[in-house]
Amino acid sequence: MRTRPLKVALLGCGVVGSEVARIMTTHADDLAARIGAPVELAGVAVRRPSKVREGIDPALVTTDATALVKRGDIDVVVEVIGGIEPARGLITTAFQHGASVVSANKALLAQDGAALHAVAEEHGRDLYYEAAVAGAIPLIRPLRESLAGDKVNRVLGIVNGTTNFILDKMDSTGAGYQEALDEATALGYAEADPTADVEGFDAAAKAAILAGIAFHTRVRFDDVYREGMAEVTAADFRSAKEMGCTIKLLAICERAADGGSVTARVHPAMIPLSHPLASVRGAYNAVFVESDAAGQLMFYGPGAGGSPTASAVLGDLVAVCRNRLNGATGPGESAYAALTVSSMGEVVTRYHISLDVADKPGVLAQVATVFAEHGVSIDTVRQQGKDGEASLVVVTHRASDASLSGTVEALRKLDTVRGVASIMRVEGE
Amino acid sequence: MRTRPLKVALLGCGVVGSEVARIMTTHADDLAARIGAPVELAGVAVRRPSKVREGIDPALVTTDATALVKRGDIDVVVEVIGGIEPARGLITTAFQHGASVVSANKALLAQDGAALHAVAEEHGRDLYYEAAVAGAIPLIRPLRESLAGDKVNRVLGIVNGTTNFILDKMDSTGAGYQEALDEATALGYAEADPTADVEGFDAAAKAAILAGIAFHTRVRFDDVYREGMAEVTAADFRSAKEMGCTIKLLAICERAADGGSVTARVHPAMIPLSHPLASVRGAYNAVFVESDAAGQLMFYGPGAGGSPTASAVLGDLVAVCRNRLNGATGPGESAYAALTVSSMGEVVTRYHISLDVADKPGVLAQVATVFAEHGVSIDTVRQQGKDGEASLVVVTHRASDASLSGTVEALRKLDTVRGVASIMRVEGE
Repeated sequence: MRTRPLKVALLGCGVVGSEVARIMTTHADDLAARIGAPVELAGVAVRRPSKVREGIDPALVTTDATALVKRGDIDVVVEVIGGIEPARGLITTAFQHGASVVSANKALLAQDGAALHAVAEEHGRDLYYEAAVAGAIPLIRPLRESLAGDKVNRVLGIVNGTTNFILDKMDSTGAGYQEALDEATALGYAEADPTADVEGFDAAAKAAILAGIAFHTRVRFDDVYREGMAEVTAADFRSAKEMGCTIKLLAICERAADGGSVTARVHPAMIPLSHPLASVRGAYNAVFVESDAAGQLMFYGPGAGGSPTASAVLGDLVAVCRNRLNGATGPGESAYAALTVSSMGEVVTRYHISLDVADKPGVLAQVATVFAEHGVSIDTVRQQGKDGEASLVVVTHRASDASLSGTVEALRKLDTVRGVASIMRVEGE
Repeated sequence: MRTRPLKVALLGCGVVGSEVARIMTTHADDLAARIGAPVELAGVAVRRPSKVREGIDPALVTTDATALVKRGDIDVVVEVIGGIEPARGLITTAFQHGASVVSANKALLAQDGAALHAVAEEHGRDLYYEAAVAGAIPLIRPLRESLAGDKVNRVLGIVNGTTNFILDKMDSTGAGYQEALDEATALGYAEADPTADVEGFDAAAKAAILAGIAFHTRVRFDDVYREGMAEVTAADFRSAKEMGCTIKLLAICERAADGGSVTARVHPAMIPLSHPLASVRGAYNAVFVESDAAGQLMFYGPGAGGSPTASAVLGDLVAVCRNRLNGATGPGESAYAALTVSSMGEVVTRYHISLDVADKPGVLAQVATVFAEHGVSIDTVRQQGKDGEASLVVVTHRASDASLSGTVEALRKLDTVRGVASIMRVEGE
């Protein structure tokens, strides 16, 4: 074993960073054995240097992150700051000064992954980011290495623990969205401003990363269709139960049947209770992968939190350090397939539509005609009347999102349709 | 991209081998893009050369496997023969003649993994074997790479699809063991001689491999305690249901609480219906991993079959080819922890014991005294009498297997105990 240590610079020392530093200390011997050389924490860049950080030598702490990544003796930079800047600039500078990078930054990878990979490659360095998607769950490595000889057709996952906690709570207690969100906030599962989670921004960044790796093509955050889950109601859960389903916020990346294009989307959807994703409880994450040869695989585990995310960071750190000792690099960006990312209109799936209609003869015929005119075939209809008003629940066969949108637009124009109470996609069948 | 192809020799062309060859042809462009060079099937060693093999150039087929691995121009040998010899000799010869090896051979790895790793290392070559455990499910790579910075404490899994199919059938239909086995055989899930599966030999080989990788130590097939599932009865399933459990054949690898030793075992066990492994149906496999930082992870997918196993082989093939182009090797054997493998007697778990007893006063007191004398604490007792005979179902708190064995031995000597109907461990709580 080499005795000269590999030097690691840590950018950010919050929940994840402090746990990375802690494990680097407590598991130092194990890490050294697995890498083939000791690793040493050579510097920690923080915003608030005065904060006491247990177990971290204050002499290592600096507010000058740029100077730290420019030092030239750093082997690996671990970036756990998050956000676009200054993370992007620091990672670029790190590559330019000879370091490899381990990052947990989904937003940055989803927006600028290609450019960062290009800088890494130019300088012959590694860029690893297992922790950016689904916390501790090994997902990036299985997709880009274990399934490297296979052809992935679909990735379907619960990749945001906050929203899964809220939806699980609504499902199990009958609570409304706000009530469940309040509980998630009180328990620390949701942040004070929950927008990134509940509006699906976080999941969309992860979907972009997963789609790119799964299909060997470039998918950026802006390519991902996104709908949040704030509109999901207790009534939707009751409808889902009647169909033998539950509701999850899903990230769905699909290869089109002809193989020439892909789609990536995040939205709430009904899935059958028999689907393995339906039983993913609380803040857990799980990702279903369908491929030509392997068939259906699922990866399950904690999707967030300091320790789980640190586990993923450290796995990458070991790999990058080993590569460095070997004078080699791991697999870089694989985007050779260069597929088109199609718009949401081309996605084909099933729909559950709940309409408030006038309770009089001929309404169903009118509604059915509108579906037929837009080429959307109806699977089941359930009608329920009360006090001159009625509700009509329509479940369709598979149709394109564009056809469905056209149908809904036309339905809204019918005099007999008082309103469209909800539209939800049905997945996982 | 390099244009000179990497040469692959295939040893064995059965269900898995023919699928590997097929995918190498149909996905040739994808594989080349992912590796950075084309791969070429340079030879296929078989036992019956006259058999027609669709898609394989007959000129590549040979019965002289030794000559093939000695050719000197082979970059990677893919071994899918199975069994100890000639596979062991051929793999050794392959390393000696400069090739790296991808193997799906659980029996060989479980028996001689350390020796094979040593030869690979001596010659600076790779030995990869993702396909040896749980088919297509990425498990070896996540354990040895993704969790390389974490500390794994427990691996608990369903790693044999045949036995899971049989147990699932017994659970869902109330069928007896023989009836369920017959159906598995008729459907092709069980082999004509099902011994390796139902007696737990197959699962024990996988447990040895998983324990070794998870705990960075050497665990051989002979170190694994093994009990088959032929004794599991419909009555056991009824008892399990009363406890809110089902029965699975589990491979369980554990680090002792003091960290200094490990255990590995395969046996049928009751697990709560709420445990994610309880809902693994049919011939699927799933492995639960518990670690310090990541927490609880689960990996799920098809555990056998030509295509899934080929997917795992090809993932390894891509990695080994990439290493070769880089002039590097991947992680080799990691056995630095050199932990003791403790015997089954030291395993601590809970037990469900069903006794046939005389239906007269004082029996329960006698039985309870025997448990107490052996230091096994009772959680619940259920007594049911009929026609002068009674059955007594005892569920214990956690106790060592040695204490439990002593208890059972003493119970058998009691005049009032007519027989011990079943003993089953309770796991996953």
